Amino acid sequence: MTTFTIIGTGNMANAIGGVLAEGGSSVTYIAKDQVGTAPLSGDVVVLAVPYPAVDSILAAYGDAFDGKVVVDITNPLNFETFDSLVVPAGSSAAAEIQAKIPGATVVKAFNTNFAATLASKQIGELTTTVLVAGDSAAAKAALVAAVEAGGLGAIDAGSLARAHELEAIGFAQLTLAVGEKLGWTGGFAVQR
Amino acid sequence: MTTFTIIGTGNMANAIGGVLAEGGSSVTYIAKDQVGTAPLSGDVVVLAVPYPAVDSILAAYGDAFDGKVVVDITNPLNFETFDSLVVPAGSSAAAEIQAKIPGATVVKAFNTNFAATLASKQIGELTTTVLVAGDSAAAKAALVAAVEAGGLGAIDAGSLARAHELEAIGFAQLTLAVGEKLGWTGGFAVQR
Repeated sequence: MTTFTIIGTGNMANAIGGVLAEGGSSVTYIAKDQVGTAPLSGDVVVLAVPYPAVDSILAAYGDAFDGKVVVDITNPLNFETFDSLVVPAGSSAAAEIQAKIPGATVVKAFNTNFAATLASKQIGELTTTVLVAGDSAAAKAALVAAVEAGGLGAIDAGSLARAHELEAIGFAQLTLAVGEKLGWTGGFAVQR
Repeated sequence: MTTFTIIGTGNMANAIGGVLAEGGSSVTYIAKDQVGTAPLSGDVVVLAVPYPAVDSILAAYGDAFDGKVVVDITNPLNFETFDSLVVPAGSSAAAEIQAKIPGATVVKAFNTNFAATLASKQIGELTTTVLVAGDSAAAKAALVAAVEAGGLGAIDAGSLARAHELEAIGFAQLTLAVGEKLGWTGGFAVQR
């Protein structure tokens, strides 16, 4: 059984934690005001916070991330313009985070999902599917298994370099939702 | 009625042309060996060829593209490695093409679709949806209308800058299909 610590208590944190707990994983939460004091007890730490909140979390825990799998769910958009990213062209939030905590194994996941369709497990008639990218096959396999146990689909989408593409998918999906071209209970689905 | 000239006679060319013709648009095709001699008769020219084939088409027609709407459907992958793009980081095939034919209006579309699901009009239980990006609202609206008339969904996904994200979606989808994580009759669907 994989043990997860989820940092954050928002919609995404609750939806992700719900799926993982339903699949039999142990899940603990760290709220914003507990960051730096509550321990990172899980083998896997999910940073279920907006990208601008990540840096202070990395700083608060420092070396405590060493040896952990860290799941980055962020979409590093400029949320004022919705027209650009706040990471360098060609890079990704996941790559930026990995560079800051080299002792951890960063995995990108959940950023192409909306909270509502993680909770409902369906997008239209299709099972909600989580796309996972990372350089550790073992870390990805454990996350895929935990998500599938929770009743969702999960696909290994390649190396951590593919986080750039997953974040582009998230960017496109968010701009369409904000522009009311699709609903927050819809979005991009995957048919195998 | 919009008139389309489709350059290419492969699976994507036939699938796109089939949708447009079914919707009542006039569709003519230019095969590879007719490039440069057959006229660009349509108001809209669809470059339904792989990205490496685009440059010679642009060179063959030159100023004949002026005033046309040009639909770029390419995914500019490095097809040897399937691990990178052949356009500059942050840019897109669509932006590169627009820079080479400044007298034309480039629209990105169809690159997030597989030929099979354009033809079947369904991805699982969801209607196949074409994502369209470009800087001309009129050009996008005409293409969206022509695609919808053919029985598919179509969404204006924003400015031509969003072609970067659409190409990232295409990149991710292609790598998953090539890696047998999803089938060529499946792929990314859109639920509104």
